[in-house]
Amino acid sequence: MDKLTIYNTLTRKKEIFIPLNPPHVGLYVCGPTVYGDAHLGHARPAITFDLLFRYLKYLGYKVRYVRNITDVGHLENDADEGEDKIGKKARLEQLEPMEIVQHYINRYHYNMQLLNVLSPSIEPQASGHIIEQQEMVKKILDAGYAYESNGSVYFDVQKYSKVHNYGSLSGRKTDELLTNTRELEGKSEKHSPLDFALWKKADPSHVMRWPSPWSEGFPGWHVECSAMSEKYLGKVFDIHGGGMDLLFPHHECEIAQTTAANGKGSVRYWMHNNMITIGGQKMGKSLGNFITLDELFSGSHKILTKAYSPMTIRFFILQAHYRGTLDFSNEALQAAEKGLQRLMEATDTINRIKESPQSTVNITEIKDQCYNAMSDDLNTPGAIAILFDTVRIINLLKEGKEKISADDLSELSSFMNSFIYDILGLRKETSGQDNDRTSKLVDMILTFRQEAKEKKDFATSDRIREQLQKIGIEVKDGKEGMEWRWIEVD
Amino acid sequence: MDKLTIYNTLTRKKEIFIPLNPPHVGLYVCGPTVYGDAHLGHARPAITFDLLFRYLKYLGYKVRYVRNITDVGHLENDADEGEDKIGKKARLEQLEPMEIVQHYINRYHYNMQLLNVLSPSIEPQASGHIIEQQEMVKKILDAGYAYESNGSVYFDVQKYSKVHNYGSLSGRKTDELLTNTRELEGKSEKHSPLDFALWKKADPSHVMRWPSPWSEGFPGWHVECSAMSEKYLGKVFDIHGGGMDLLFPHHECEIAQTTAANGKGSVRYWMHNNMITIGGQKMGKSLGNFITLDELFSGSHKILTKAYSPMTIRFFILQAHYRGTLDFSNEALQAAEKGLQRLMEATDTINRIKESPQSTVNITEIKDQCYNAMSDDLNTPGAIAILFDTVRIINLLKEGKEKISADDLSELSSFMNSFIYDILGLRKETSGQDNDRTSKLVDMILTFRQEAKEKKDFATSDRIREQLQKIGIEVKDGKEGMEWRWIEVD
Repeated sequence: MDKLTIYNTLTRKKEIFIPLNPPHVGLYVCGPTVYGDAHLGHARPAITFDLLFRYLKYLGYKVRYVRNITDVGHLENDADEGEDKIGKKARLEQLEPMEIVQHYINRYHYNMQLLNVLSPSIEPQASGHIIEQQEMVKKILDAGYAYESNGSVYFDVQKYSKVHNYGSLSGRKTDELLTNTRELEGKSEKHSPLDFALWKKADPSHVMRWPSPWSEGFPGWHVECSAMSEKYLGKVFDIHGGGMDLLFPHHECEIAQTTAANGKGSVRYWMHNNMITIGGQKMGKSLGNFITLDELFSGSHKILTKAYSPMTIRFFILQAHYRGTLDFSNEALQAAEKGLQRLMEATDTINRIKESPQSTVNITEIKDQCYNAMSDDLNTPGAIAILFDTVRIINLLKEGKEKISADDLSELSSFMNSFIYDILGLRKETSGQDNDRTSKLVDMILTFRQEAKEKKDFATSDRIREQLQKIGIEVKDGKEGMEWRWIEVD
Repeated sequence: MDKLTIYNTLTRKKEIFIPLNPPHVGLYVCGPTVYGDAHLGHARPAITFDLLFRYLKYLGYKVRYVRNITDVGHLENDADEGEDKIGKKARLEQLEPMEIVQHYINRYHYNMQLLNVLSPSIEPQASGHIIEQQEMVKKILDAGYAYESNGSVYFDVQKYSKVHNYGSLSGRKTDELLTNTRELEGKSEKHSPLDFALWKKADPSHVMRWPSPWSEGFPGWHVECSAMSEKYLGKVFDIHGGGMDLLFPHHECEIAQTTAANGKGSVRYWMHNNMITIGGQKMGKSLGNFITLDELFSGSHKILTKAYSPMTIRFFILQAHYRGTLDFSNEALQAAEKGLQRLMEATDTINRIKESPQSTVNITEIKDQCYNAMSDDLNTPGAIAILFDTVRIINLLKEGKEKISADDLSELSSFMNSFIYDILGLRKETSGQDNDRTSKLVDMILTFRQEAKEKKDFATSDRIREQLQKIGIEVKDGKEGMEWRWIEVD
């Protein structure tokens, strides 16, 4: 099997993934700012890095996956101005900010469970790591790359740029950035519009505030990820992921902070998922095409022609490569829904394939192709294309048009289950265990009925059919044995 | 309807509940220390204060319910000695302490969801409130009620006792406590064995540590609740709840801390739920009668004769008054299970009652009695007794032996639904139909087995038992026929 390669945004090329301390892998991903319901745009990074988490575990790594919760310091605009997003929501709802935070964390977790996104190993909250952020600010001040101004502390981008490369991740140049930034107003605390807040003095109306050497205030948005990734993964760690929208300024600022504090950047592989568009447009509250996950699952948004299940959304996202844009439309989701159904049916069909002495199909080749696609920078569209080929083969095997040995059949079954359920993280959407148990019970009963028929005991055979009918199970006697289905009963 | 009265542990009597700032109510409850799976002992406070939360909301209050997560500073014994409980688990499992914390928070939340315990408004973690705890320690030091010793800070109980009443909650006297406490060893940092840690200097192996004016260290266990309740509910708030086992020293120390820091205690009503015993004995790991909630739900602990559903556990706990001890036994749980089933069936039966022009039953009286019981310090056994009377009446109405008008029927139906589902927080478990179908299928199969046994066809009878065992159904042959139960399968 091919080695895992990852497209590293920092070097702009695919690289073989070699962890710093195998078998351990440290993975940090930017999680949500919890002031509103999760939407389609939250589903993509969550599913992308859940896939990576699952695949790394499949490859045998012990992964410490840290995904943060931003609950303080994320202001309404990136120029360190405007209200705190959570503080504003709390003011509007007349609640304590942490009530807003708790509410939307709970909602986010519920949505993630529906999408079968595994819980990360650690889910640190920014407001719970104020000391760690203050310690990092102190280190940056001590290194001379920040300055205090009226109780706030700002990162000095121009001073940093004289020694280090601000823009190493995004490719942006400070000169060009300056040209494109509006001039600071006279009263600004910042030396330059490129500078960003590490600590902000709280104005009197600001609820979320902590004492610090500089003022009663709160941390700047970017410093939380630098401080928390260092605390839980160390000064250097393997992978940092997030949405492309966070690449600049957020991730660029993270690199500047850790480099200023520790003399070097901390992240070995930067990974970014691309955005979801709707009918080719960016998704946005002002554009009226902003769809929450709840609306998708219930079909209650005006642009939806029907409800889409969580697994349909997951499969839709996995069908595209994470670095490409993904355009949302009802047609595309309905195609994903059908594809998912075909895949799920095939995992059932496998159980009805009859073994032959020898195989006419090559299972090892299928497996290798699928895993090689995954190892090629998580090429899920490639892997899913091979799965659909395999579905075709499974149907031919069921019809007896291809042959498979007992060993190969067992290998095919375990491969399909492992790849579809464990790695892609799909699941059957009715309660799995109950369904499975019920099916097994019905199968047991039909075996008795078959035995009765073979003994010409048609009274028993009929009685069983009638009893099942009363319970809501209809039995049909077909050429290839008995089949059954659920029916409605009063 | 009677006014809500609450038994206040502080005054040792029932008092009419008058909130400080109606319609707002501040409620703080001690949550779990997250280093192991939740057990029966965690279910009782969670359900008791969930009931209070629900009832206060029913009464029209806007409740801010804070339930903390202890994830640092809870040492193995109450004398501020021994390893940190979470640190120890992390060492044994070779994980970062916050991985242990996250894992058991997730498990706790899952169990609480199964028990239909609502999420609190805010669920603060101790490790996320280090600054707030340090600020409180500073205030206590400034007030002269604490001293620094070798980098740690201890609360000076004897000095505090000269001015305030240490023991106001528990009724304990410092003289008696001293007699019953073993002498300090020569090297102790404490002035007196009654003193307790506010801040502990971390030894070199201690992972969880933060900078402070006194040392790199971590907060004492008691200070988190004082600091976090003040942060989210204010210097004075309405209700503080917790298990009776926390009354001393934890809650006594909380009162001492807030009184030392702010000049007065913060809690207006202290509420304590009593303990669960097993066969009259205390539950404990060393006694071998320590049952986790997962074990209860799956029936996998050796002292369980079967699995009990989350709602059976909830109803079992609600059937006793929260201030009485509650003795666990299989018999008591099975009685609760049957009672719950009668109640649930009655909510269905209501829909099949025919209206009459006039009522022979008094619905308003039933309602009043139920709510008056609840308002009498959450007298759930009283309320449930009235519900069972109502079940009897519902069955008489169904049989036409009593009459009810359309208006009364609608009132009865809405009362029963509101009281059982919204206030008691019970719910129907599994879609009735699925469960019912499964049971009927198993019963069909057991009928075949019975027929086989009667024909002395023991091969078939054994085969059926083995097949069911594989599906996860255990069959027992008893005097009164076959019984079956769900079991765990791999």
